[in-house]
Amino acid sequence: MLAMKYTALVTVATLALTFGLSGRVGAMRQRHGIDAPAITGHPEFERANRIHYNTIEQLVLFLPLLWLATGVIGDAWAAGIGGVWILGRLIYAQAYQRDPKKRGPGMIITILATGALAVSVLWGILRALLGA
Amino acid sequence: MLAMKYTALVTVATLALTFGLSGRVGAMRQRHGIDAPAITGHPEFERANRIHYNTIEQLVLFLPLLWLATGVIGDAWAAGIGGVWILGRLIYAQAYQRDPKKRGPGMIITILATGALAVSVLWGILRALLGA
Amino acid sequence: MLAMKYTALVTVATLALTFGLSGRVGAMRQRHGIDAPAITGHPEFERANRIHYNTIEQLVLFLPLLWLATGVIGDAWAAGIGGVWILGRLIYAQAYQRDPKKRGPGMIITILATGALAVSVLWGILRALLGA
Repeated sequence: MLAMKYTALVTVATLALTFGLSGRVGAMRQRHGIDAPAITGHPEFERANRIHYNTIEQLVLFLPLLWLATGVIGDAWAAGIGGVWILGRLIYAQAYQRDPKKRGPGMIITILATGALAVSVLWGILRALLGA
Repeated sequence: MLAMKYTALVTVATLALTFGLSGRVGAMRQRHGIDAPAITGHPEFERANRIHYNTIEQLVLFLPLLWLATGVIGDAWAAGIGGVWILGRLIYAQAYQRDPKKRGPGMIITILATGALAVSVLWGILRALLGA
Repeated sequence: MLAMKYTALVTVATLALTFGLSGRVGAMRQRHGIDAPAITGHPEFERANRIHYNTIEQLVLFLPLLWLATGVIGDAWAAGIGGVWILGRLIYAQAYQRDPKKRGPGMIITILATGALAVSVLWGILRALLGA
């Protein structure tokens, strides 16, 4: 039983995006002939690698908050904020791959979505502490 | 209460494996005299480091899907697929440490296990959306 | 509904700490003029970067065990052990930033807290297997 079906769908979508970004790292590794375990050698590869890792950094903040928030604000709202997170990541990944200096806006959208989830969870904790 | 006891056991096993791989990074750091915060300096260390990080990359995809899937396909099936994931990781880690070019098969097993969980979760979401 | 309110609060605190450590990486990147996607260039930056990544390595072990353990040992105990984890990470981060050779004690506290959660979860699994 998947009670939180939209939140589950957003979760699968974020994981698919992260997997896709890891695939781009592998593709750049091949294109530029960078053999494992090297993680440097060509800017295009290094950008793809940093995009992937930054996404993992953000994912480990996002997913726990998403699943705590869905219990506070409900499935649809949590999934909606999750959709904003995915949008931010897509903008971030595309902009960063072209030019690392353009990575700001997508990053900010990602962080705002995560922040909105964090505030929701803290609100839920406060209500639970007050016995509401 | 741990309702999903086999899935919980697989979870602890994957985390123990990941912790073990981080221990190997530390051991290689000492063996080759690579002082923190350096992350390069000897191929054996760099391989251990990449194995550990690739496992974290895979873990953040695997664990959320495992716990969503256990609600769809049940504790035993989810844990069984999780066991395949662990097997794939063990093969990957051993092969990569000897020769990075041999990392493919273990990687593919890992990804197939994660993919099977993803398909299970999407099936559960579809059923929930259809109200089944 | 957030039934495990103290565990939820500890979760948000660990994520806030991790986010704060990522902010320090960004600040060091600016201070030392290290443009993305480079991940080397100044020891202070490299330390901040390793502290952040080591914390993610620990976080992916800690959070699943925290949420499994809270179902076994209860909200207050799980959150209490989580508090020790946070303390260990703060000690680790401050000591490592000053001198990487001093990173041991905070690391050990972190691992002991994670280990205590792992033992709790295994105890819960054993009881579930025995039908207790």
